[in-house]
Amino acid sequence: MALSAFAFPSYISRGTPTDSYKSTSLYSSSLFSTDLPSLSPRHTNTHSKRKPARVYASLAEKGEYYSNRQPTPLLDTINYPIHMKNFSVKELKQLADELRSDVIFNVSKTGGHLGSSLGVVELTVALHYVFNTPQDKILWDVGHQSYPHKILTGRREKMNTLRQTNGLSGFTKRAESEHDCFGTGHSSTTISAGLGMAVGRDLKERNSNVVAVIGDGAMTAGQAYEALNNAGYLDSNMIVILNDNKQVSLPTATLDGPAPPVGALSSALSRLQSNRPLRELREVAKGVTKQIGGRTHQLAAKVDEYARGMISGSGATMFEELGLYYIGPVDGHNVNDLVTILNEVKSTRTTGPVLIHVVTEKGRGYPYAERAADKYHGVVKFDPATGKQFKTTAKTQSYTTYFAEALIAEAEEDKDIVAIHAAMGGGTGLNLFQSRFPERCFDVGIAEQHAVTFAAGLACEGVKPFCAIYSSFMQRAYDQVIHDVDLQKLPVRFAMDRAGLVGADGPTHCGAFDVTFMACLPNMVVMAPSDEAELFHMVATAAALDDRPSCFRYPRGNGIGVPLPPGNKGVPLEIGRGRILMEGERVAILGYGSAVQSCVAAASMLKDRDVNITVADARFCKPLDRDLIRSLAKSHEVLITVEEGSIGGFGSHVVQFLALDGLLDGKLKWRPMVLPDRYIEHGSPVDQLAEAGLMPTHIAATVMNLLGIRKEALF
Amino acid sequence: MALSAFAFPSYISRGTPTDSYKSTSLYSSSLFSTDLPSLSPRHTNTHSKRKPARVYASLAEKGEYYSNRQPTPLLDTINYPIHMKNFSVKELKQLADELRSDVIFNVSKTGGHLGSSLGVVELTVALHYVFNTPQDKILWDVGHQSYPHKILTGRREKMNTLRQTNGLSGFTKRAESEHDCFGTGHSSTTISAGLGMAVGRDLKERNSNVVAVIGDGAMTAGQAYEALNNAGYLDSNMIVILNDNKQVSLPTATLDGPAPPVGALSSALSRLQSNRPLRELREVAKGVTKQIGGRTHQLAAKVDEYARGMISGSGATMFEELGLYYIGPVDGHNVNDLVTILNEVKSTRTTGPVLIHVVTEKGRGYPYAERAADKYHGVVKFDPATGKQFKTTAKTQSYTTYFAEALIAEAEEDKDIVAIHAAMGGGTGLNLFQSRFPERCFDVGIAEQHAVTFAAGLACEGVKPFCAIYSSFMQRAYDQVIHDVDLQKLPVRFAMDRAGLVGADGPTHCGAFDVTFMACLPNMVVMAPSDEAELFHMVATAAALDDRPSCFRYPRGNGIGVPLPPGNKGVPLEIGRGRILMEGERVAILGYGSAVQSCVAAASMLKDRDVNITVADARFCKPLDRDLIRSLAKSHEVLITVEEGSIGGFGSHVVQFLALDGLLDGKLKWRPMVLPDRYIEHGSPVDQLAEAGLMPTHIAATVMNLLGIRKEALF
Repeated sequence: MALSAFAFPSYISRGTPTDSYKSTSLYSSSLFSTDLPSLSPRHTNTHSKRKPARVYASLAEKGEYYSNRQPTPLLDTINYPIHMKNFSVKELKQLADELRSDVIFNVSKTGGHLGSSLGVVELTVALHYVFNTPQDKILWDVGHQSYPHKILTGRREKMNTLRQTNGLSGFTKRAESEHDCFGTGHSSTTISAGLGMAVGRDLKERNSNVVAVIGDGAMTAGQAYEALNNAGYLDSNMIVILNDNKQVSLPTATLDGPAPPVGALSSALSRLQSNRPLRELREVAKGVTKQIGGRTHQLAAKVDEYARGMISGSGATMFEELGLYYIGPVDGHNVNDLVTILNEVKSTRTTGPVLIHVVTEKGRGYPYAERAADKYHGVVKFDPATGKQFKTTAKTQSYTTYFAEALIAEAEEDKDIVAIHAAMGGGTGLNLFQSRFPERCFDVGIAEQHAVTFAAGLACEGVKPFCAIYSSFMQRAYDQVIHDVDLQKLPVRFAMDRAGLVGADGPTHCGAFDVTFMACLPNMVVMAPSDEAELFHMVATAAALDDRPSCFRYPRGNGIGVPLPPGNKGVPLEIGRGRILMEGERVAILGYGSAVQSCVAAASMLKDRDVNITVADARFCKPLDRDLIRSLAKSHEVLITVEEGSIGGFGSHVVQFLALDGLLDGKLKWRPMVLPDRYIEHGSPVDQLAEAGLMPTHIAATVMNLLGIRKEALF
Repeated sequence: MALSAFAFPSYISRGTPTDSYKSTSLYSSSLFSTDLPSLSPRHTNTHSKRKPARVYASLAEKGEYYSNRQPTPLLDTINYPIHMKNFSVKELKQLADELRSDVIFNVSKTGGHLGSSLGVVELTVALHYVFNTPQDKILWDVGHQSYPHKILTGRREKMNTLRQTNGLSGFTKRAESEHDCFGTGHSSTTISAGLGMAVGRDLKERNSNVVAVIGDGAMTAGQAYEALNNAGYLDSNMIVILNDNKQVSLPTATLDGPAPPVGALSSALSRLQSNRPLRELREVAKGVTKQIGGRTHQLAAKVDEYARGMISGSGATMFEELGLYYIGPVDGHNVNDLVTILNEVKSTRTTGPVLIHVVTEKGRGYPYAERAADKYHGVVKFDPATGKQFKTTAKTQSYTTYFAEALIAEAEEDKDIVAIHAAMGGGTGLNLFQSRFPERCFDVGIAEQHAVTFAAGLACEGVKPFCAIYSSFMQRAYDQVIHDVDLQKLPVRFAMDRAGLVGADGPTHCGAFDVTFMACLPNMVVMAPSDEAELFHMVATAAALDDRPSCFRYPRGNGIGVPLPPGNKGVPLEIGRGRILMEGERVAILGYGSAVQSCVAAASMLKDRDVNITVADARFCKPLDRDLIRSLAKSHEVLITVEEGSIGGFGSHVVQFLALDGLLDGKLKWRPMVLPDRYIEHGSPVDQLAEAGLMPTHIAATVMNLLGIRKEALF
């Protein structure tokens, strides 16, 4: 058999992902409506008309757009921000319009995070007009919204490679450009990093500005608060731009329209937005004048239009209480206002940290995005004229959806089951659960630490919590998993989606380490399904296991097409019991999780060459199926463990057992196949798996090598 | 040689620890003054006089105390809180005084966390008077302050076993009492857990109260903010008691008196405390009446005395903005006020979350504690009459101190070196660094997540950050280590104190997992010194290594007495180079970190029986010294890896290399010795190491078994 015949088995082709913190699974096709109901067909054929600049707002009202790339005469003159420094405000506005158009057309060809980028077009233009990167530092929290920034900083020509193998990253990335001063992907890191840069600048006695742009959603994470608290204390000069688009919980992939923001912070922000007359009145009544830099500062007229937050004493807003000078709210789509305020803040030295509260609209200027429930947060390729996304239909659903269906089936029978997620209702599939059990689903915001300990508290009361957090985001709550759950042996169930390689989102979102960091915990039951039916069974297993914590990891992507259990109701597995899938001789491959399918594919390849090996599905990393492993070790010359995870995980647990049981002593060759000891860049799933050396061909080649058969005989 | 002769080698006897979140190393004797300078001898001999109740306040002013246990007639009648329900307020006050006296005398015999417990005596009495545990839930954040609670809930007779092997835990612990509804140790978890309990109660349709008591220090952690934000949103009934004793940064082990609280939050709290007239005025002016439970509620007269925080709209305090009903500040040593307010809040249903801001004094009522810089946060045994702690003098300093001295030596030569800690200046030794380089030391509050990303930002600017965080607290910042440091290959240095077993603080503070969770990261250099001289060298190595992140772990306790490098200046090691300490045959023991000394001790034991084995110090877990390992594997029959860490760490890295290098295939027996797959309870270091099976005797016995020599021949 030729290599190409099985090089890309269907279970590896997981589609084109657009999934990141906090994003959603585009594979969960049942969660998305590909048609936008409010659009009528007649609005879709106006695409060939050239429109003057700044016409998009009215276009948005009419719901029309173009299908061809529009002329961008001003943007065409800009390779780097230096080229826009002499623009007039009017030109900056036109540049913003052209930039928006460019973002839309670029993303329509590649897919990516559209809505966030559209919301910050004017802000990006204003920032690069006022500040001078790379000397000045602009940090984009999470990085979803960095596409306009990339276009303005020398990467416009590469935008067609976005999120593809060897192409541009979907986030900011230090290795990609000196204008990306800090890499992002996970939420709420930029105030911390920016403060570090500001302090470092002062220590090095340099002059530069540091600007961290962070969304109101990202502001719900504890780290943002820790950083604000420290920024107020250190009083270093830096600018935090709170990009407030009411996305405290990400509305991607909601079933019934936008999700209302969760968290009390959102209502505080709303009050700030709505209460300007009162605040102005109070300012006047108190006669408070903010001291900036030790002198009474006459704010520019434009800045004065924006009533500042409560400044004095105990009447301060939360941000003022934390020691930041508050300015806002500012219209984030008014370039003129933004430039004026940013210039004002930039020119005022020794202010300490300043927070500028900017109000933007996600999806701004693209009518289909503005109207969509998810504001086109993450999209696949689409037709700009109609907004219709080119979604591929798959025969199977995503593991995400199967998890949700399995959990709903369990919850139908056990009223104690509840679900918790951290602002990821779409990404985790729990929006489906919420639709069915609205009182039993908890979105805690971007707050994984709290999510886990909150679940521990629920478990104390006899409730059965399932905490659904991506593998890479579980890293945020590791101490809580250890200290609040595992140490107390509380039965919290962790559903870890996006385990292993994740495709276009790349290394920030790769679930590489969870087996390693979970399986070392004494009380944790650690499982991974090899197919979607197994996932149903493992959800049932976790539901039934009520005397200790458990976790199960499953990959990004769709199921392989095995029959599902009747009524979606899994059958609890015996704890610590694996299964043999193929019986052979000399070599046994013991797979864990999604890697099992690669093992089966490898064995099939070898079978075609009359090499019959044994394949087993471990199911459990902890507790191990000792009988199974002992049996495999005693009846084979070689045992290969295979997992899509880092060193220290499943293979390490197997070999430790083998060693302590004396099974390694001269009787057996053991070979671990794990993710390599390097980060694997974003790209297609197939490219990533090939780069990782975990394709079926790699497994088969390993077997051949160990058996002393020349690989050429096989391929 | 008899077993007892080497059963407890000196390097294992690490003293009696009193060290926990956020505590300090009592081993750092140089950091502590054992004499309290303001006390004159004549104040120490008033101990025999019986004093009436409530006399301690005046005593505190005079600086006197007793050396004998005082009569506690009321406390003697109480085994459980039910026994105090009929007390008058006057009796409650006396009970509080007796309880305080009991805490002081108990802790004087055992050591432990004194200051925090003394601060909450009245609060504890009031809580147990008003609420009914275990039906009602009282959560004590961190748990340092839980001693009065333990005395009132059936554990008074066991207080003499506090923090000792098989004795009471120094924290709350579910397994210890049904009155401990949630286990603690790490900071800032209780609002999350309490909210989970409140929601669980509502789901289960039970009636009970949930009270989370959290310090202002713990309130600086992001998780507390995440939980407050979610509590305000969910609006479940629960009570958060903010125990405000101005300990935002823990002042333990300061050199020059109390550390001023760090973080901007502390100044906001100060304003709340100081600004009551203004706030009352505003209340009146606005005519705001808080709606409680849908009706206009007439607060009891006593509650009315406490002006509540800014309630309406945009003028809210941070807590009000986050959706909590704020009451305060309340005098936390006034039992009458506390009881009145708690009763009022308890009797008011459907209020949603309430935050009661209670102001207390750490060390209250014990004059020596009140006067001490650290408020007797953590103490060893002491004489109650003089406050003098019975500190043992050791020949060597703690690893903590050596780390600080090593870092100071590096920083003297490299002005780019800075240090970061998370409210642990005493515990990490960085107070010494701060004294020398006040502008280059950053205490970020209890905020490990921020600390790590802040360090990453500093590294971006070319500064060389050393981030000193205990092994178990590093779990709080795991995602930041991965996402912000390792993935970007930024040269942040992690100094991980308290690696391995930690003695009296027990499993919450055990540094069991750091090798496993750090060594799986692709870019991280992972080291552990086998003695204090090696620690100096590794600090120098980390300082010199400026192109990637690095970490080194070192144990709780004192050095073993090897010579230190001249001028405290270490010499950078070659990256990934170990060393052979003893040359022998047949068996090689490869130790990592502090376990190396146990390996040497084991080899010495065996040598006395004419069994000569090889002992090597790996120094690096990553990158491994492949040449050394290959050499050991080829020239010995048995290779034993030994580490004071969990599965998945050093041993796993060694065996993976052995396997992939073909060195395991029938040529070598490998045996891993790691921490057992269970949590090891608090106790003496020797008891813990014995329980873990990592004593030199265990290592020697393993060798004998593998060589087929009867153990009896040895022992």
